[in-house]
Amino acid sequence: MKRVMLTVAYDGTSYHGWQIQPNGETVEGVLNRCLSALLGEKIEVTGASRTDAGVHAMGNVAVFDTESPIPADKISYALNRSLPEDIRIQKSQEVDRDFHPRHCPSHKTYEYRIYCAPFPMPIKRFYSYFTYVPLDVCLMSQGAQYLTGTHDFKSFCSVQTQAETTVRQIDSIEILESRTGGDIVIRVTGRGFLYNMVRIIAGTLMEVGRGHIPPEEVETILAAKDRQAAGPTAPACGLTLIKIEYIIE
Amino acid sequence: MKRVMLTVAYDGTSYHGWQIQPNGETVEGVLNRCLSALLGEKIEVTGASRTDAGVHAMGNVAVFDTESPIPADKISYALNRSLPEDIRIQKSQEVDRDFHPRHCPSHKTYEYRIYCAPFPMPIKRFYSYFTYVPLDVCLMSQGAQYLTGTHDFKSFCSVQTQAETTVRQIDSIEILESRTGGDIVIRVTGRGFLYNMVRIIAGTLMEVGRGHIPPEEVETILAAKDRQAAGPTAPACGLTLIKIEYIIE
Repeated sequence: MKRVMLTVAYDGTSYHGWQIQPNGETVEGVLNRCLSALLGEKIEVTGASRTDAGVHAMGNVAVFDTESPIPADKISYALNRSLPEDIRIQKSQEVDRDFHPRHCPSHKTYEYRIYCAPFPMPIKRFYSYFTYVPLDVCLMSQGAQYLTGTHDFKSFCSVQTQAETTVRQIDSIEILESRTGGDIVIRVTGRGFLYNMVRIIAGTLMEVGRGHIPPEEVETILAAKDRQAAGPTAPACGLTLIKIEYIIE
Repeated sequence: MKRVMLTVAYDGTSYHGWQIQPNGETVEGVLNRCLSALLGEKIEVTGASRTDAGVHAMGNVAVFDTESPIPADKISYALNRSLPEDIRIQKSQEVDRDFHPRHCPSHKTYEYRIYCAPFPMPIKRFYSYFTYVPLDVCLMSQGAQYLTGTHDFKSFCSVQTQAETTVRQIDSIEILESRTGGDIVIRVTGRGFLYNMVRIIAGTLMEVGRGHIPPEEVETILAAKDRQAAGPTAPACGLTLIKIEYIIE
């Protein structure tokens, strides 16, 4: 028996999110099915980040145990041959038997991508949120600075959360703008996130960028510990889980 | 009667190219149908660049004549409401009655996008060509320098061409690499291109990047004036027509 870690990339457009559901195809469901067929045993993966419907990933992480003699680092090649082309394993490797993708400490990096222009750009439509309302990137950066560090992010968490605590640590938030203009990326790194947290941060910072919320009010929103105080949850298609880096302690 | 110029963006994935065909949906066909319905008269657009099946555009140009009282700059808004979401007009404006999108001199900029990594990245699959064979960007840049300027590009033209002359002028070729690695962009600007020319340039520079063709051999390939001398035609999905700038003389 060995434990195998997969680095999983996917286009979330056609999936009902990561987590297995009674109705609708999910990334976890496809992985379980293809791995079970490949290895000839019932496989159930455990994911690091249970991304929502429509959210993309370049580096989500999943773990499973297997008796298979196939070397862990070769599983990526074999599995990619049976996966649909909107899911691709980037790496497979053996990990310690006690490694857990959600309980082991990590830094996760997400990017929320916005395309801001008079009209939508077709080749960006699946991977960016389009808005024709101008955004002031300087204001967005000013607002973002209040979110770095350790805070109670209750205002930035959907009410459906089952989390025991809503305190989280954000290492950095950068607002990046393309030289040619139009593309704005909110890049957030932190030690774990609450349900919908990055999308609510993105929705709130867009309200700041539009001039509807003064940047310093982000501090007030945090202090309110009330979901109603923050901006809307930004649409799923703009969000991509970039990478998860586990902290060796 | 007025002449209207449209700046047209599209995701070419689902189209049989720009130009109307007896079988299969084309960008030109969709524009003619939607414009005719919108303006209540038979409209036939003339395109600047008749891109191949699967090629994308951020700024192709089309022109048509109309009797419509709708102001030219408002046609973009009205037309986008009836177009499918993989085609979007970026701008509409009135132009001189003698303006012709192919005959008037212009600088066209294309980007050929390559994703070079051990495994494909799902969110890039429609807009990049994937290769797992490593590419040396320095060699590609060295090879590219032989192509700038005015040359007979017969070696870089598909044999089906109907062009009278195969002499063309390339203003610049840049090979751009993303900081994080993996993404390589060949950005070419020139005064018009032969059939498949950018894709053959991309296919040849990839052979240079793989070490199969020494960079200085690009000069020999040009001199051969023989399609067989150059590398393969790179796949359509990696190519995007970025913009067309008309030269006011």
